[in-house]
Amino acid sequence: MTTYTRDFPIRIHDVDAAGIVFFAKYFTLAHNVYEQFLADIGHSIPAAIEQGDYIIPIAHSECHYRAPMRHGDEITGELRLKEIRGTSFVVETTLVGKDGVHRATVTTRHVCVGTKTMKPIPMPDSLRDALTKYLIES
Amino acid sequence: MTTYTRDFPIRIHDVDAAGIVFFAKYFTLAHNVYEQFLADIGHSIPAAIEQGDYIIPIAHSECHYRAPMRHGDEITGELRLKEIRGTSFVVETTLVGKDGVHRATVTTRHVCVGTKTMKPIPMPDSLRDALTKYLIES
Amino acid sequence: MTTYTRDFPIRIHDVDAAGIVFFAKYFTLAHNVYEQFLADIGHSIPAAIEQGDYIIPIAHSECHYRAPMRHGDEITGELRLKEIRGTSFVVETTLVGKDGVHRATVTTRHVCVGTKTMKPIPMPDSLRDALTKYLIES
Amino acid sequence: MTTYTRDFPIRIHDVDAAGIVFFAKYFTLAHNVYEQFLADIGHSIPAAIEQGDYIIPIAHSECHYRAPMRHGDEITGELRLKEIRGTSFVVETTLVGKDGVHRATVTTRHVCVGTKTMKPIPMPDSLRDALTKYLIES
Repeated sequence: MTTYTRDFPIRIHDVDAAGIVFFAKYFTLAHNVYEQFLADIGHSIPAAIEQGDYIIPIAHSECHYRAPMRHGDEITGELRLKEIRGTSFVVETTLVGKDGVHRATVTTRHVCVGTKTMKPIPMPDSLRDALTKYLIES
Repeated sequence: MTTYTRDFPIRIHDVDAAGIVFFAKYFTLAHNVYEQFLADIGHSIPAAIEQGDYIIPIAHSECHYRAPMRHGDEITGELRLKEIRGTSFVVETTLVGKDGVHRATVTTRHVCVGTKTMKPIPMPDSLRDALTKYLIES
Repeated sequence: MTTYTRDFPIRIHDVDAAGIVFFAKYFTLAHNVYEQFLADIGHSIPAAIEQGDYIIPIAHSECHYRAPMRHGDEITGELRLKEIRGTSFVVETTLVGKDGVHRATVTTRHVCVGTKTMKPIPMPDSLRDALTKYLIES
Repeated sequence: MTTYTRDFPIRIHDVDAAGIVFFAKYFTLAHNVYEQFLADIGHSIPAAIEQGDYIIPIAHSECHYRAPMRHGDEITGELRLKEIRGTSFVVETTLVGKDGVHRATVTTRHVCVGTKTMKPIPMPDSLRDALTKYLIES
């Protein structure tokens, strides 16, 4: 299994009035890693939206918060596939500081949906193959 | 049991390049309802942050997406307490359209933490009493 | 002249790591007032986008910051039209606290553009008439 | 004169219901470039906030929009100093696409303010020297 990683800093506007990253921002930060991941494996979201055959909306998302992130923290997003099924897959993104402290784990379930029918459809083989390299071995 | 409700519109910037509300925004929209709820029951977050005895960070959050929200949709946030324990509580916010369509359910676990020790502490009685009115009867 | 006003609170996520509202958020908060204004005068943005004859993108925006806004502040957005021309108009939104302190003035120039040609077109008479009531008398 | 440049992609959540980057986001994207610039010249914002002698709030901001940015666009932020005075400086950030199209120019005036007095103070020599290398020659 390969882990896809991506580094990013915590910006001034990621932090809220409590002095830590706002809980909803964890999902945005993890999604930035996911967007770059899809582009890097040849399945960029803008191209998919433009091509128009299918979209991959998120059906469920969750985040387990372990330690706060603060302004200026350097974070590594570690993305792995937790599950790959016929029409859906689950992405797990762990956010870890440069200091080695595990900050949070964001999990999102994505479902392939035909643009015309808006019903689940089998994901394209090329996408499945690309994702499988990042699947956590069970 | 009482349900706390709050209406709000979907703004142009809530929607992303796919034409629907970005999945992370559901958490922000639900948190807006929660912030107003706390202010309305006499436990506003700014006052708590300023007073400085305790904070109530979110330890876990999740969202189940059922139907997309679009620009101009009028949404009602229905907030209820799903669980109240000694040092933590769980808030469930259902997002329902004016059209009656259930869009999503956002669930967040909040833990009372002493500002000095950063360890869980029993929540103040006045907060517990105020929350209990909104507890889903089991 | 009539002034369009709209009250809103500063939320925890409007504030950044410096403990004050992030400078870019002033534009978002002012635009929320503008969106509601357009809806209330019968020219809602979602309807205009869907109808598809013209859009009204922003060609220039600026903000003059006078005093910071903090978490929990209650703000009134006061919207007026500063200028109405053949194909464009200028909106001025003043953000004032419940304490009477003038926080900032946001100014945005909007240009009517035909959706097909993407060139400036005269704004519809009904929109011009509706806007004119809010024009600052010179 | 040196120009500080930084590349970044337009993410799905940068775009709004009109299919283009929301006008307020231009300021956030330009500020990301500015934050990285300050860190790279040895004057990071988190360090300044923590050290606590002075802060550099924005007194005025404006953006001139020339062409829309869309999801997936690769943008280069080109940052230059437009003016350096005793207690303030003006940053100009030009956003240019990989396609060479000039999308927008964001201009922000920053004022050094003493944390205790909250009044303008002369900026530290080390900051002035670092900024001067990026000053547009007149």
